[in-house]
Amino acid sequence: MRSNRHSQTIVQRFQEPFTFETTYLGNTETISELEVAHEEWGNPAHPVILVCHALSQNTHATDLDYPDDFHRSWWTSMVGPGRAVDTDKYRVICINMLGGCGGTSGPATVNPETGRPFGLHFPVVSIGDMVRSQKILMDHLGIKRLHAVIGGSMGGFQALEWGILYPDFVERIIPVASSAYSNQFMIMTNRVQIDAIQSDRVYKQGDYHDGAVPESGLAVARMVGFTTFISPLMMEKKFQKDRNSKREPHADAGFHQQMLHEAENYLRHVSEPFSKDFDPNSMVYLLQSWTHFDLAIKYGTLAKAVEPIQAKTMLICASGDNLFPPYLSYDVLRALEVNNKKAEVVTIDDDYGHDFFLIPEIILDKITPHLVRFLST
Amino acid sequence: MRSNRHSQTIVQRFQEPFTFETTYLGNTETISELEVAHEEWGNPAHPVILVCHALSQNTHATDLDYPDDFHRSWWTSMVGPGRAVDTDKYRVICINMLGGCGGTSGPATVNPETGRPFGLHFPVVSIGDMVRSQKILMDHLGIKRLHAVIGGSMGGFQALEWGILYPDFVERIIPVASSAYSNQFMIMTNRVQIDAIQSDRVYKQGDYHDGAVPESGLAVARMVGFTTFISPLMMEKKFQKDRNSKREPHADAGFHQQMLHEAENYLRHVSEPFSKDFDPNSMVYLLQSWTHFDLAIKYGTLAKAVEPIQAKTMLICASGDNLFPPYLSYDVLRALEVNNKKAEVVTIDDDYGHDFFLIPEIILDKITPHLVRFLST
Repeated sequence: MRSNRHSQTIVQRFQEPFTFETTYLGNTETISELEVAHEEWGNPAHPVILVCHALSQNTHATDLDYPDDFHRSWWTSMVGPGRAVDTDKYRVICINMLGGCGGTSGPATVNPETGRPFGLHFPVVSIGDMVRSQKILMDHLGIKRLHAVIGGSMGGFQALEWGILYPDFVERIIPVASSAYSNQFMIMTNRVQIDAIQSDRVYKQGDYHDGAVPESGLAVARMVGFTTFISPLMMEKKFQKDRNSKREPHADAGFHQQMLHEAENYLRHVSEPFSKDFDPNSMVYLLQSWTHFDLAIKYGTLAKAVEPIQAKTMLICASGDNLFPPYLSYDVLRALEVNNKKAEVVTIDDDYGHDFFLIPEIILDKITPHLVRFLST
Repeated sequence: MRSNRHSQTIVQRFQEPFTFETTYLGNTETISELEVAHEEWGNPAHPVILVCHALSQNTHATDLDYPDDFHRSWWTSMVGPGRAVDTDKYRVICINMLGGCGGTSGPATVNPETGRPFGLHFPVVSIGDMVRSQKILMDHLGIKRLHAVIGGSMGGFQALEWGILYPDFVERIIPVASSAYSNQFMIMTNRVQIDAIQSDRVYKQGDYHDGAVPESGLAVARMVGFTTFISPLMMEKKFQKDRNSKREPHADAGFHQQMLHEAENYLRHVSEPFSKDFDPNSMVYLLQSWTHFDLAIKYGTLAKAVEPIQAKTMLICASGDNLFPPYLSYDVLRALEVNNKKAEVVTIDDDYGHDFFLIPEIILDKITPHLVRFLST
């Protein structure tokens, strides 16, 4: 089975039924047992900060043995001793999303009733379901309160749902590069990615586990994603030098005499390994969860949705994020202000694009000072 | 064979070799005969305006029998009696791009040496090659001079190359929503589309003519394209009402209990018919021509590239075009001004996105007045 399990990841099995509440469908489905994978760092006696990961990530937010290796884990510059999410001060926990393939139950999990991976027989997953599965783990670990929930992109969706579903439990929520709903561009670009995976001719309605895996569809999907994670301006800065350099033929090109620009090689370089490592059905499920996330639809209006929140809220966005533009954070701010909640938006002046929240230089220079202040209030 | 041939389209065969000059590869290839498809409207005695089409279009720019049916042809609101490109005043000609599948030679053309479609054995096509094939038709038709060359998107690439390659022949060039080079975002999003087609498991290195056609890869490619043709803001305006409406299951969904938003249905609605009508190899060739278009690389610098131009130039761009943002038109303007050429940029204040140049309301209200003035100078 494909998974991103790391040696430090602990998979906790709960041998009780877990019911999914896919409210937009008006129905519920149940699995007979639930697995939740997590990692943690810092002193178990300290206040707890929960880190929620984005679409394609896993529990491996940081690695305290390699605090300066920014390539080994996805949020090393954010989580560690002396970092914004300081493992000297906090107990930090990161949980794999429900529906993912990093240890928590998802479509790649073996269905105990059939002995085969669930595939598309896994229930439809909502962001609320993810948060409820995380709460089960919190209770199991004996945690009574979260100092903060922080997450980027889809992780920010979870942070908001945490504040709504468990208002007594959460003191601070920090959605970064995130939103209270999917806008139409996200819905469209997610659909392209889902169709790229499901139209791969070996996809077989998600039951591909005995034969070829739809890696080429997943690679195309991932390439689509990457064109939205970096801003066009950043792409120009990153690759423009190529405009004056000699182009070399690409040996693996399917197109005779084809020459690939550096930007094209980059796209393949980031997509191909991913397509061999991630479960295609998981990608479909997580994209669906993203697409159907809309607190305004779920709770009536955005103002009604955030009404239960008791946590202080800091939303962090960036001017150059064209996937989650700042207006989406301000929508949340306005809804919170209508309810007289404590909230602020920090808009980072940066052109990088949506992935700014994963870039060490931006985290260290532009995000950390705001987080240190907010977490210590 | 797949083609978009319309009854009015005239295909002219030139039984002489045509040599492709793919300068970025430093080599040349030849086909033994050339076919060029065109349509024309207006009085043959009048000054000639050449219309160059964009990526997926054809010779059918307008239909004088249906001057008010904006769905029948792709530029009806631009070309016709009393329109900006006035068929009462001008002889208007539209030629299918070399490498396309609308009647002009391309990868779907039968190779006379093998009796089978060229497929990937068709030579690599550059924008310059397209223009050179169009000049052969102009000479054949006895045309000595063009009052103007106008084109949107890739059609604008051709307009610029017309001005450079045949400076004595062209009086006015009008690149709309266009550029003098592909930026890195275009290069990346074109690569995703090419890989979506070529990774369809029935693509068979482009030799799919005896079996299943890689329609699903082409449909995904087209969906990727559509996410770049309309601005995120326009998508929000177009589909936001759906955020408060009930969602119905989609009968054909590959994902059980899947619900499609209106925006997702729209994407499929525009992509699926296209994928059954257009030649996948043609799409690959035209996207390659686009990606490799860079007048600065071809001619050394942009200023050197435009130096031969004798035509007056009007560049039209729109503020909300995030595929060809206005800076790309201003790059051309600056290069022309360095050479003391007559040139201007018209920036339309509109949020529609790249496809603004195809929208009747925008053409009639915001583009036509500028064109009428420019064409009559």
